[in-house]
Amino acid sequence: MKLPSKVKLVDVGPRDGLQNEKQPVPAEVKIGLVHRLQDAGLTEIEVTSFVSPKWVPQMADNAQVMAGIRRKPGVRYSVLTPNLKGLEAAVAAPREFWPDEIVVFGAASEAFSQKNINCSIAESIERFAPVVEAAKARGIQVRGAISTAVGCPYEGEVPPERVELVARLMKQIGVQHVGVADTIGVGTPVKVQRALEAALRHYGIDEVSGHFHDTYGQALGNTLASLEMGVWQFDTSSAGLGGCPYAKGATGNVATEDVVYMLHGMGVDTGIDLDKLIDAGAYISEQLGRKPNSRASTAILNKRMA
Amino acid sequence: MKLPSKVKLVDVGPRDGLQNEKQPVPAEVKIGLVHRLQDAGLTEIEVTSFVSPKWVPQMADNAQVMAGIRRKPGVRYSVLTPNLKGLEAAVAAPREFWPDEIVVFGAASEAFSQKNINCSIAESIERFAPVVEAAKARGIQVRGAISTAVGCPYEGEVPPERVELVARLMKQIGVQHVGVADTIGVGTPVKVQRALEAALRHYGIDEVSGHFHDTYGQALGNTLASLEMGVWQFDTSSAGLGGCPYAKGATGNVATEDVVYMLHGMGVDTGIDLDKLIDAGAYISEQLGRKPNSRASTAILNKRMA
Repeated sequence: MKLPSKVKLVDVGPRDGLQNEKQPVPAEVKIGLVHRLQDAGLTEIEVTSFVSPKWVPQMADNAQVMAGIRRKPGVRYSVLTPNLKGLEAAVAAPREFWPDEIVVFGAASEAFSQKNINCSIAESIERFAPVVEAAKARGIQVRGAISTAVGCPYEGEVPPERVELVARLMKQIGVQHVGVADTIGVGTPVKVQRALEAALRHYGIDEVSGHFHDTYGQALGNTLASLEMGVWQFDTSSAGLGGCPYAKGATGNVATEDVVYMLHGMGVDTGIDLDKLIDAGAYISEQLGRKPNSRASTAILNKRMA
Repeated sequence: MKLPSKVKLVDVGPRDGLQNEKQPVPAEVKIGLVHRLQDAGLTEIEVTSFVSPKWVPQMADNAQVMAGIRRKPGVRYSVLTPNLKGLEAAVAAPREFWPDEIVVFGAASEAFSQKNINCSIAESIERFAPVVEAAKARGIQVRGAISTAVGCPYEGEVPPERVELVARLMKQIGVQHVGVADTIGVGTPVKVQRALEAALRHYGIDEVSGHFHDTYGQALGNTLASLEMGVWQFDTSSAGLGGCPYAKGATGNVATEDVVYMLHGMGVDTGIDLDKLIDAGAYISEQLGRKPNSRASTAILNKRMA
């Protein structure tokens, strides 16, 4: 089995993981999670989103969180910006609080795009052009998330051609990196490989990442299938935080702990200290009043107690 | 990705899954599970074990369960027999209630063998020789389970050489098929492949199966890694039943539902009807008063309710 020797994980727990929490999570807890993740060795963290608090009330403290982080050299801090207003809000603070990277997004499903943002795929991405331009003018990197890249709650299976389309459009507006996202966690290894291949028609192997939800328990298989293609960057979420508003009862992003356990077991370097990572996940889970949604974390915490 | 076109799953839920349940599960419930599994398309079911009720009180109803099953043509029924007494008990009933296959076992870890059965690996397998002989004399097939094949609770990592040794000894006493079992669920894809390779030095690709527990969430990745080697037979457990007495808080065998979801998603034929399988897992889970320990099942049951 040919695998990359090194993998970079982007912990999206503070943003993708927490955004659907109904009870407000205090800014200091979010900051506490970011600090624990960077102390555990994560080198990129998706911190928050600059989106209207009417849409996502949980992220209303975005500027406070960004300003409260003790920045660690070598760590990149990214934020989701759904539009120019979001970007402007993200850079309204002093430069030291700016994100290193913004994330823009587009669905690979036409139905999803129409139902959720009321426009076509092509229009949705065209709208990001000024955001990308404004970010790059300020020296901020731009990552694009290709959502519903293998399946859509409205139209079912999504053909790889749609992923190829979104990747092409994102490339055209200057997005520097794309993440292939199985938003509702329905993907299986072969489909995920086809979606990644489609993205790789427009982006290099160092510019494509995988983003898998574990709704149907498939995320680790999908990660392994990606690794075998040479893909070495993944979004994961501390303690398996998160869910999906479009898939009732959906579990969240794949747990960072489960992915790190697999990678270290295969001798793949992540730069992450698994024990500290378990602590970070236990911290946020305790704050949320629940157990970590990670099997590796559960097993290791049980072992510690024994 | 090269994969087998067809996969056979052996549902071990009624035996491996239920054996550690503290509350007695009525025989008619166990029989009800077996019936639902065969109706869902499973072609082999590990039904019970013929072991002393002092050791495993949950399996004390073994003969009753075997006699209560409505046998379905094309389905094989297997039982665990730890010794000659167990085999004799399994064949004490009229021939129509005999198992089609017995399962014997040996640990790949010397420490595990010593601590649990108080003898060496070699001795433990030698003791099965008369059991194998007696079974084959009656036309009953013999499968061997190589337990702790990648990791052991006492000695940690288990080298592939130990798996090779157990496979060789099993071959010598006439065992016809071996299952490589990650009893405590600590394995990751590369280690699992090495363990399988070791078994394949003595058995053909059609005579080796994988048996993975999902303690650290690795079972589907391990299954995928096995499939890529051409291994096409796996033990799984309806609703992810089971645990491991040697790994506190351990989740059980990998859920049949999660494996079937992955296989069907990749176009691999299993002969199993996923919806009926979900029903079988929901049935036994309800009888046990808990939710299925399967992400695919959870997602599909939530979807049905929505």
